[in-house]
Amino acid sequence: MLETADLSRKLSQAEYKAVFTDLERRLGECQRAAREHGAPLIVVFEGWEAAGKGTCISRLALTFDARGFKVHAIGPPNEEERLHPWMWRFWNNLPACDRIAIFDESWYRRVLVERVDQAVAEGEVLEAYDDILQFERQLSDAGYTIVKCFLHISKSEQKKRLKRLEKDPACAWKVTKREWRLHEQYDDYLLAVEEMFRRTSTAEAPWTIVESHDRRFARVKAAETIIAAWERAIQAASKPPAKSARPARKKASTARTAGTNPLDRADLTLSIAPEDYRRELDRLQETLFELEHQIYVARIPVIIVYEGWDAAGKGGNIRRLVQGLDPRGYEVVPIGPPTAEEKVQHYLWRFWRQIPKGGHITIFDRSWYGRVMVERIEGFCTPEEWQRAYQEINEFEHQLASFGAVITKFWLHLSPEEQLRRFEQRQATPYKQWKLTDEDWRNREKWDQYAQAVGEMIQRTSTPQAPWTIVEAESKQYARTRAIRTVVDAMQAALQQHVSHGR
Amino acid sequence: MLETADLSRKLSQAEYKAVFTDLERRLGECQRAAREHGAPLIVVFEGWEAAGKGTCISRLALTFDARGFKVHAIGPPNEEERLHPWMWRFWNNLPACDRIAIFDESWYRRVLVERVDQAVAEGEVLEAYDDILQFERQLSDAGYTIVKCFLHISKSEQKKRLKRLEKDPACAWKVTKREWRLHEQYDDYLLAVEEMFRRTSTAEAPWTIVESHDRRFARVKAAETIIAAWERAIQAASKPPAKSARPARKKASTARTAGTNPLDRADLTLSIAPEDYRRELDRLQETLFELEHQIYVARIPVIIVYEGWDAAGKGGNIRRLVQGLDPRGYEVVPIGPPTAEEKVQHYLWRFWRQIPKGGHITIFDRSWYGRVMVERIEGFCTPEEWQRAYQEINEFEHQLASFGAVITKFWLHLSPEEQLRRFEQRQATPYKQWKLTDEDWRNREKWDQYAQAVGEMIQRTSTPQAPWTIVEAESKQYARTRAIRTVVDAMQAALQQHVSHGR
Repeated sequence: MLETADLSRKLSQAEYKAVFTDLERRLGECQRAAREHGAPLIVVFEGWEAAGKGTCISRLALTFDARGFKVHAIGPPNEEERLHPWMWRFWNNLPACDRIAIFDESWYRRVLVERVDQAVAEGEVLEAYDDILQFERQLSDAGYTIVKCFLHISKSEQKKRLKRLEKDPACAWKVTKREWRLHEQYDDYLLAVEEMFRRTSTAEAPWTIVESHDRRFARVKAAETIIAAWERAIQAASKPPAKSARPARKKASTARTAGTNPLDRADLTLSIAPEDYRRELDRLQETLFELEHQIYVARIPVIIVYEGWDAAGKGGNIRRLVQGLDPRGYEVVPIGPPTAEEKVQHYLWRFWRQIPKGGHITIFDRSWYGRVMVERIEGFCTPEEWQRAYQEINEFEHQLASFGAVITKFWLHLSPEEQLRRFEQRQATPYKQWKLTDEDWRNREKWDQYAQAVGEMIQRTSTPQAPWTIVEAESKQYARTRAIRTVVDAMQAALQQHVSHGR
Repeated sequence: MLETADLSRKLSQAEYKAVFTDLERRLGECQRAAREHGAPLIVVFEGWEAAGKGTCISRLALTFDARGFKVHAIGPPNEEERLHPWMWRFWNNLPACDRIAIFDESWYRRVLVERVDQAVAEGEVLEAYDDILQFERQLSDAGYTIVKCFLHISKSEQKKRLKRLEKDPACAWKVTKREWRLHEQYDDYLLAVEEMFRRTSTAEAPWTIVESHDRRFARVKAAETIIAAWERAIQAASKPPAKSARPARKKASTARTAGTNPLDRADLTLSIAPEDYRRELDRLQETLFELEHQIYVARIPVIIVYEGWDAAGKGGNIRRLVQGLDPRGYEVVPIGPPTAEEKVQHYLWRFWRQIPKGGHITIFDRSWYGRVMVERIEGFCTPEEWQRAYQEINEFEHQLASFGAVITKFWLHLSPEEQLRRFEQRQATPYKQWKLTDEDWRNREKWDQYAQAVGEMIQRTSTPQAPWTIVEAESKQYARTRAIRTVVDAMQAALQQHVSHGR
């Protein structure tokens, strides 16, 4: 998930002032309403060393009535805590139902810093995750709101900050060998963080990545995240008769920090010269042909998902991908609206049926991601259903990856202007007219809604085991080489791992 | 859980006939209603070898319209299945939303027979449980009803059945070396089964133990269990406006096989001669004093829970338990109605705060089990809350046990007649009058309701790590030696394990 964050986000002093005053007012209102209706709040701050957790928490704490909250700074367990089960200290620090608890680091220490420091044995990590999931479920079932923020900065930003702190006589004491060691472990830590997101981003208590290169932005995003979750909970708590056991619906965010959409960062000017394209495509197709054989021998299943805007060139892209392949080794599965048979099943059922067996390649032309795109936007499923789907899809793909599958997911991205040009061209070309339907035009009108859904989808389902690649598809040729190269790289990496595991 | 089952339960041919005809009719009605409203059913049969899964399933299958169900016999995965993630075959066999799938063995094979056979590495077991829990949660969230029956027979009954089969020329082929090996592994298997119950008896899909020494009884209990769960689901599915996301309330069971109450099997004639009592008590108290020191050195926490009928003698029992102990090493925590401070917290909070640290003993005079007794019966919490509590309590105790805690739980049991005698005696004895309140008389009127709740509590929360002991307390002296002996045994076992682990 972290790689989808846009760390360049920032707010000017003027923007910050304008928005934060309003947020402070709303946090104050929430606190009063929560006290009245009994809607306890737990906020967890985790993040990189030097990401600014402390200052962010200090500033937020100022917005609350001091009688209603407590900040818990969680370090290594003390003597007394080590003599109890590890969750004991967190139970002890639960807020009452009219109060707020803010955790500066939390129970996640155990699966992050303590894990990376090997203070927790690898064999205990899964048990720790079970304990965490049980803890959060028990609280959430009892009406607690749990907000989890991860303050994210890049490795180079972290280095810059540590150096700056070291030079400042007032702060130099904060930077010890330990901080530099944590910096060196950035990449190990990254893997642990991604696993944490995957295992604990539940429907009730999802993680929010707070882009923290700019302090003002981080503060505003944290405040907005807390307010959004808390207001929903207060609303639910204050209307007991209409109270639903399901989490309240998440409204489309209009927050100042919203729209950190990974799509916006795609460079649609990317293209490839015709002669380079020909040469590169030949080379890639040859490599892929060899790889097809190797993964067959190694019994590795390969799953390739194509999603993208209408007319972004999925079909042509897939055609180039399979052009050189042995057809006994791959299958292209086009996904349309569910059939009558599929409609009476769980929505993941038809995809489970189609996954490749070891040694084979399945290319999905559209996929299970329809749940969080078309089904979400057209109302073919309930908000509860598509919100639950992120977790369900991550679980699904994790089971495939644990089996050894290579998973590559493409979003073919182009500009609305280029789409219009292609639509008009299709309309004007008799043998292409069948490709353009009224539905395509209707979808086009919902461009912004789709863009938001796609951005959220990519952020919530891009995992190290099953990453999304946004393919810049303004140039079809460029998009083809980019996609096929991504598949080649992923297959080679899997084969290398296969060999190094001596399987 | 298995040790709480009453394997002597049986039905005569006449009883069986009278009741099964009606059950068949109701199953048929369910099937028709489920088809109409879309309430898919998944029934899982697991159980001991030779427990009669096959015949039970055959008989049940006869009650269904043959067009609406399918039976899946799950053996070791075949070639094709091994080339897919292990859950693939179960997704493939999901019933459509108007159908029934019956599994003769299931995804639980992986954590039972395949685990015991070491076909699944111990390190993969936790991942397998995660996969299972995700699978069942995804289905349950989508409206599937999942009924899980475990057909239980004793080891000696299994032996008898295998021998009988071997002698029968028509059936001898069924008993191979494998079956005898499974028989020898009964105890390993038992541990795996208990872990399975603990990890996967969720609020949405709890396990039901089907006592299977008598085939008729097993058949009726399985049918009743299916009907109870299915009727609730159909009711929920057929009333979309009133549909609650929470599981429908479980009505007090009036089923023919209900009331397999472990309390009923307590032998209340047990007593001890006065001179034996004196000698035995002295011996036990001395041993306990030594053990208190040893567990202090070994840093083992000890948790002792006393529950029981009013006037069953909890106070006197506890007094004898601690009489010889060093008071720096133990604490008695009496649990009454929650205070104002406790009321605004999660119900488990006050217990988490009171658990002993390593090396100390805490004796709870009443406990967190109030949630599923008095709070349930007096309506101090919602049905959803107390139904969820079994799982929450098991999770709580598992976290304590994983930390190394010794957990002993007593239900002090006596007859209503003996209780009345003691009430009257209290009333007649001036210095004992304070002990008897109006509430005691009110609770006495609800004896049957409490007995049912206690039976259910013991069945659903007795685990190998935190077993219940029903203490026959018609004789106070007997009850005291029995309870203290149980504590002594548990502490000695923990110390032995501690030493053998070289800690």
